[in-house]
Amino acid sequence: MNPTNINVFKSYGESGIARWGAPTIAAKYGAVAAMVRSMAINPDDYPHTGVTVYNDSFPKIPAVAISTNDANWLSHQLKMKMQLTVFIQTNCMMLPDAPSFNVAGEIRGSEFPNEIITVGGHLDSWDLAEGAHDDGAGCVQSIEVIRAIKANGIKPKRTIRAVMFMNEENGRKGGDKYLELAEANKEKHVFALESDEGGFTPRGFNFTSTEMQFEKIASWQKLLLNSGIDYFGKNGGGADIDPLKKLNTVLADIAPDTQRYFDIHHAATDVFENVSRRELHLGAANMAALIYLVDKYGL
Amino acid sequence: MNPTNINVFKSYGESGIARWGAPTIAAKYGAVAAMVRSMAINPDDYPHTGVTVYNDSFPKIPAVAISTNDANWLSHQLKMKMQLTVFIQTNCMMLPDAPSFNVAGEIRGSEFPNEIITVGGHLDSWDLAEGAHDDGAGCVQSIEVIRAIKANGIKPKRTIRAVMFMNEENGRKGGDKYLELAEANKEKHVFALESDEGGFTPRGFNFTSTEMQFEKIASWQKLLLNSGIDYFGKNGGGADIDPLKKLNTVLADIAPDTQRYFDIHHAATDVFENVSRRELHLGAANMAALIYLVDKYGL
Repeated sequence: MNPTNINVFKSYGESGIARWGAPTIAAKYGAVAAMVRSMAINPDDYPHTGVTVYNDSFPKIPAVAISTNDANWLSHQLKMKMQLTVFIQTNCMMLPDAPSFNVAGEIRGSEFPNEIITVGGHLDSWDLAEGAHDDGAGCVQSIEVIRAIKANGIKPKRTIRAVMFMNEENGRKGGDKYLELAEANKEKHVFALESDEGGFTPRGFNFTSTEMQFEKIASWQKLLLNSGIDYFGKNGGGADIDPLKKLNTVLADIAPDTQRYFDIHHAATDVFENVSRRELHLGAANMAALIYLVDKYGL
Repeated sequence: MNPTNINVFKSYGESGIARWGAPTIAAKYGAVAAMVRSMAINPDDYPHTGVTVYNDSFPKIPAVAISTNDANWLSHQLKMKMQLTVFIQTNCMMLPDAPSFNVAGEIRGSEFPNEIITVGGHLDSWDLAEGAHDDGAGCVQSIEVIRAIKANGIKPKRTIRAVMFMNEENGRKGGDKYLELAEANKEKHVFALESDEGGFTPRGFNFTSTEMQFEKIASWQKLLLNSGIDYFGKNGGGADIDPLKKLNTVLADIAPDTQRYFDIHHAATDVFENVSRRELHLGAANMAALIYLVDKYGL
């Protein structure tokens, strides 16, 4: 991953194909297996996993990610033109789909109960760790939004719903089902906010909306400035809420400081101990404030 | 420490007297020892140490800090009106001063070698840990500024000097000596930048200067925006460089995200493993860029 991008997600976008494309590209050239350098910026000893895409035209060869330190070692050995033999043993397999559920809780709106404001994260995670940042943090923050609104005695006009989506990492079935239910129940989805970029210090919010809606939203930014929020940007959203685009819902995401995100991304390091309670709180408090404003002033 | 301040240093300023003032205030009321809650925002199991001030009018009683978790437990017990006996054993003592040194390295200016730009941190730390953030990070970043300028083939007009100050935590003798030598050597100190707020993601720089100088500096902010720097503020400086005020030097500090600072401040947690290489790099790169601009355009 290119460390010269300040935005680490840009580097992830540029390099991700090395992981998800590797098995197909390697198989095309006759490889019996694919081994990739993990998507991480800091050197570490942890493999970072993630989606790999197979193509029916080529053999579905085994694919593994090795740590950045191991990849550096391997690269060095290869440059020395050493004869290398690698032994790979994997025990991953695709199992058939099994029933699973989104989990939601809501405060019903006092004036417009059928107008829904969604705040969410996703429940599933890669099995190397707890998924504490990805996306336990987003789930806890979404619940905290509901708790904070209740604790402050606020009676929202619209229904505010915290949703822990299922299956974000492997197909987005939870997000698709959420849209399906929204349509079936004729719900009006005015706003959806996702937290899925780690429970780090919040820096901004991004929004996908009409220009007029964005102007209205941008006028609230000064209210959050003292909470550590530096910017309101465009192109907001998240994997789980993106299906709501079909309903013209205004989509948003909280953008935390992400410099440490790829230290924990899809790796054994994504554990509770690596979440700062204070950073998590700051994010949740800002999310609650934003949702309060959306409910109070509409979009 | 008040967790509702976004700026944790504000909370430290408000609560710090509980630590540094405790022995004198307690002794005044006849206490045989003082035990204080550590200065930390997140609950943890670590005592956080720091300066304590004695007053010759009262007995110099032993003083200890206990962890926030222990303090919560103790507070709970006291509220239950339990009879409590505390046994304190301390082995701290004031030893006589011993010789010690600031450590400095510089690139001599090609045009104005007698005009000095200082970038620094401090070498000393509290003995509970390595002082990796406080202030190993600032030392490493200051050296990195020199290295980066050299590595980029830049020949600065002014002398750029990285200084690792001694004795910041316990009297600022290194900073005072630095001023003394500057005066003795008739050096012209145009700018001094300190990094002593932890090696976390950089967010801004603060400056103490004339209004005209600040306007000039502020015009450079846009050049750093893409490096993750959000603001240029006022009231900049640092304990080690503050003596240079006497020479009308423009003083500055790098202001990183400090939400995790009081997790490690003066505690056993201030170790190398808790410094993110990437966050440290980002700070150093921005410091180098700022110093490059000061040298290039003057103040």
